[in-house]
Amino acid sequence: MPLQPKDPAYAERVRTSFDRQAFMATLGARLGRVAPGEVDIELPVRDALTQQHGFVHAGALASVLDSAAGYAAFTLMPAGAAVLSIEFKINMLEPARGSSIVARGRVVRAGRTISVCRADALASENGRETLVATLTGTMMCVEGRGLAG
Amino acid sequence: MPLQPKDPAYAERVRTSFDRQAFMATLGARLGRVAPGEVDIELPVRDALTQQHGFVHAGALASVLDSAAGYAAFTLMPAGAAVLSIEFKINMLEPARGSSIVARGRVVRAGRTISVCRADALASENGRETLVATLTGTMMCVEGRGLAG
Amino acid sequence: MPLQPKDPAYAERVRTSFDRQAFMATLGARLGRVAPGEVDIELPVRDALTQQHGFVHAGALASVLDSAAGYAAFTLMPAGAAVLSIEFKINMLEPARGSSIVARGRVVRAGRTISVCRADALASENGRETLVATLTGTMMCVEGRGLAG
Amino acid sequence: MPLQPKDPAYAERVRTSFDRQAFMATLGARLGRVAPGEVDIELPVRDALTQQHGFVHAGALASVLDSAAGYAAFTLMPAGAAVLSIEFKINMLEPARGSSIVARGRVVRAGRTISVCRADALASENGRETLVATLTGTMMCVEGRGLAG
Repeated sequence: MPLQPKDPAYAERVRTSFDRQAFMATLGARLGRVAPGEVDIELPVRDALTQQHGFVHAGALASVLDSAAGYAAFTLMPAGAAVLSIEFKINMLEPARGSSIVARGRVVRAGRTISVCRADALASENGRETLVATLTGTMMCVEGRGLAG
Repeated sequence: MPLQPKDPAYAERVRTSFDRQAFMATLGARLGRVAPGEVDIELPVRDALTQQHGFVHAGALASVLDSAAGYAAFTLMPAGAAVLSIEFKINMLEPARGSSIVARGRVVRAGRTISVCRADALASENGRETLVATLTGTMMCVEGRGLAG
Repeated sequence: MPLQPKDPAYAERVRTSFDRQAFMATLGARLGRVAPGEVDIELPVRDALTQQHGFVHAGALASVLDSAAGYAAFTLMPAGAAVLSIEFKINMLEPARGSSIVARGRVVRAGRTISVCRADALASENGRETLVATLTGTMMCVEGRGLAG
Repeated sequence: MPLQPKDPAYAERVRTSFDRQAFMATLGARLGRVAPGEVDIELPVRDALTQQHGFVHAGALASVLDSAAGYAAFTLMPAGAAVLSIEFKINMLEPARGSSIVARGRVVRAGRTISVCRADALASENGRETLVATLTGTMMCVEGRGLAG
């Protein structure tokens, strides 16, 4: 499945859009690797993101996984398109703790309107990576509705 | 399906646990109604929660929906138990905007170990409520592993 | 949310399409109530549908829930459109047994391209109904690709 | 993640249980490869499995994907345990057609009580395989409730 970007400026388009997601700044998340069909987002772990047991809240994981999956789909969309999440599902696999999380979004199937993506959250603790959550989601390419990015 | 709390102090237990979810404070979320099998969480909308088009980020919705669903299940768990999210799935129905969101978590089926919950996110805009997202999730009751709340 | 069919012949359109789903005949499923945004499918329980413990297989439940949800969406689509399932998620709530199952599909949000539906499976045993599974799914309206129904 | 079966007779246990799933015989599904954490199920395509456009019904895909995922988890459970599907979610990626489908179930995370699995459905048409659907699901290990397999 060769993933060919329709827009050669895809990476810049992802970075511009990511910078406009105020919620990513609120979380302290940073855009990492951007490649055709692949986007990573890094989330340093801090107390402000935790649930009642001190683990990273499932919603914080969902947030970076959703953005990573959505932007992975966005790399393959044409210039001028916008990406919207239609739905996603997350399985929590292990308590999320450590010094940082990376959310790795990957396109599973890119369609003209609908793309299906996967994203894995890996937690780093003492130099060891653990898969702590996995998402599958459906992303929609929207054109001509006054949205961009 | 009569929902009978096993622990008469269920509401206090939910409030104590919610206050320990630092991520809810980061979002600016507040605990609302707490009843057997039912928990509401209120989220005032502000720029810090938005995605690239100015709507509330799906991850912020997921966060309050997950907590509302988890605490709805927690109201029916015995004293000393902890609640963990195993998985959840969210469908986004409309762009989330307005002045505030309320996440209404409800238990669909309460089991000894596994509970299934639903949660709806309603956005208020100019006095009108719109259903913007809906979650179904599986919550686990954990006892005797050194976790509480 | 008033659900207005665009095609007054919606019910006939559902019945014609259902009759072409050979898999429903293989299962022994029958179309029940058809109303705007609502479709019920009845599944008499028999040994041919069971899993290893004698309960109805989750896949058989998924099959009638998916069709009920898809046809609920289809009632609101224009004449000439086809409906395709994009994704669905099912939670199993109780072992499914008894004399018959009814899958009740309901539209949660009807869009031009994308509709979100819910479907509940209720098992009848000795005159008592139990909710045994619940589905949420995304249905797509396809026009002009040579598909119909 | 080395997947070590607790029961050396795991493969025989899977085969015995599969043979008791009457619904698999109704579908015409056959058990394929069985290895620790991995189970394949083969489904020859025939008219009896189709939806209204002549593709394999999403419910038939869900059925073999759920069984493949559940039995993948079952390979790692102790002797005497039973496996139950708690929930699963499926994304349909392409219309499912061809001469046969293989559902490849794989364990993502094996826990004492809860296991998370993935399963992919690949359709064979003219010697070419296409990924047509993907499932993630949660499987539960049940002991001492009078169930087996």
